[in-house]
Amino acid sequence: MISELPGRVRQLSVLSWNNEALSAANDSVAVEEPLEIQISHVREGRRVIRNLSVTMRTPGHDTELAAGFLISEGLLENRDQIDGVETIDENRVRVVFRDHVRLDLQSLERHFYTTSSCGVCGKTSLEALAVSDRIRLASGVPILPPEILLQLPDRLRAAQPVFDRTGGLHAAGLFDVSGHLLALHEDVGRHNAVDKLIGAEWLAGRADFSQCVLFVSGRTSFELMQKTLMAGIPILASVGAPSSLAVDLGRRFGATLVGFVRGSRFNLYSGAERIPEMFNSPTHAVIV
Amino acid sequence: MISELPGRVRQLSVLSWNNEALSAANDSVAVEEPLEIQISHVREGRRVIRNLSVTMRTPGHDTELAAGFLISEGLLENRDQIDGVETIDENRVRVVFRDHVRLDLQSLERHFYTTSSCGVCGKTSLEALAVSDRIRLASGVPILPPEILLQLPDRLRAAQPVFDRTGGLHAAGLFDVSGHLLALHEDVGRHNAVDKLIGAEWLAGRADFSQCVLFVSGRTSFELMQKTLMAGIPILASVGAPSSLAVDLGRRFGATLVGFVRGSRFNLYSGAERIPEMFNSPTHAVIV
Repeated sequence: MISELPGRVRQLSVLSWNNEALSAANDSVAVEEPLEIQISHVREGRRVIRNLSVTMRTPGHDTELAAGFLISEGLLENRDQIDGVETIDENRVRVVFRDHVRLDLQSLERHFYTTSSCGVCGKTSLEALAVSDRIRLASGVPILPPEILLQLPDRLRAAQPVFDRTGGLHAAGLFDVSGHLLALHEDVGRHNAVDKLIGAEWLAGRADFSQCVLFVSGRTSFELMQKTLMAGIPILASVGAPSSLAVDLGRRFGATLVGFVRGSRFNLYSGAERIPEMFNSPTHAVIV
Repeated sequence: MISELPGRVRQLSVLSWNNEALSAANDSVAVEEPLEIQISHVREGRRVIRNLSVTMRTPGHDTELAAGFLISEGLLENRDQIDGVETIDENRVRVVFRDHVRLDLQSLERHFYTTSSCGVCGKTSLEALAVSDRIRLASGVPILPPEILLQLPDRLRAAQPVFDRTGGLHAAGLFDVSGHLLALHEDVGRHNAVDKLIGAEWLAGRADFSQCVLFVSGRTSFELMQKTLMAGIPILASVGAPSSLAVDLGRRFGATLVGFVRGSRFNLYSGAERIPEMFNSPTHAVIV
């Protein structure tokens, strides 16, 4: 029933900081990859194929994911409606409806918008990222000392009034490299918290985020790293774990990605040059 | 900088179970509501308005959210491009681009799909839920004793091999009302974990989920309650907090929603009739 599929976890070399001691370490990160869900159905006498959704997911059980998604969208009710779910390639599956099934896609379209509000819809691969040619982190490297970095969780928490009462909100804080909190936003959606933070600072007149640190309360995914890079923020840090694509994006575009900032320790996944205590050790090469 | 806006937290009456003692309690839940982000821009000499995205968010700072969203999608770079962000009503904002700005929406559309993979895109309100007329929880009430419910977190955790290694995955488990684990799936996205679980059981031949309990590792949102209801699962329980819309949906459609299942306690937000120890107390009326 439960299988440890290859491809669900990736081993990475990271830099581990613990009580002022630096070491190279191995870390396991959850693999995150896009899945395109297609449907094949007969419309006006012709069989047509249509892309229904792209979601960032853990690889594996993709046909099951597609079936469950269609069930929860109200498109699929009985086994008789489909011939099956085909695997096209490692990141694409196709739900094949039988000839006689008429899908109410108009009703669906009325309620679906072209959107990427979940942050990743529509980006079929890291390479296809429409935004990637606009990502340019400013030259000039802000320096973030480990002792400042380690204070950020407490500073975020202290400034976060709602979280403690409901346990239901994600927080995102924008800091400068001295650890001064510039702004904080909370939201039920972590992507929303980051959008509010960046949007608020931008509307207030900030054109340059190149000396800023984004700190988030949860895990870091592809989508959060994408938002960080698009705003020109060079450092993304969090209490939680990063996904594989967050690490890939960070390494590709030269951002600093820090995870598991807890107590006196953290892990560095990319961008050691912004933390001289780490960059000046030969060990830093493990994460390049 | 940080404000406690009204509308971000809602007070609710809940049933609290603690060491076999039942009491009525007040709980604060994070408010979750849909926000529609529109853009107004000039295309071929005419000003047009377009719905770009619907996201479920914590109300407040909506103009900031819209600006940040457009920045991270690469649509917005300079203040000169827009006149501002208008508030249409409490759940709609509009980013107004200046006459001279030409938006590359074709490039955008190539990379956006009509999708609801984040589970909520496109549903502009609880009332407009396209799926709601298909939601019918089966009659016949499964009984879930508190002592079984309290064991579910440990049983989920024990069966979850990847989580402990990466800290980066959400888990969803399907149980029967005896606490037997029927299936478990993990994913970087919690909606994906639930889709995989429901899809896998459905593809394996399960047509009836009416005696099942869905237990998830994180928080419960609108989207998770929607998926629970569409599959016909009568009980959704979690380690974390529910959002206001999860509670609203649960109460409206008669599902049992349980949160904060930890140690010897949990909170019940709706559907007391499936837990007789609670239903048989006059106190249960506080959550109807």
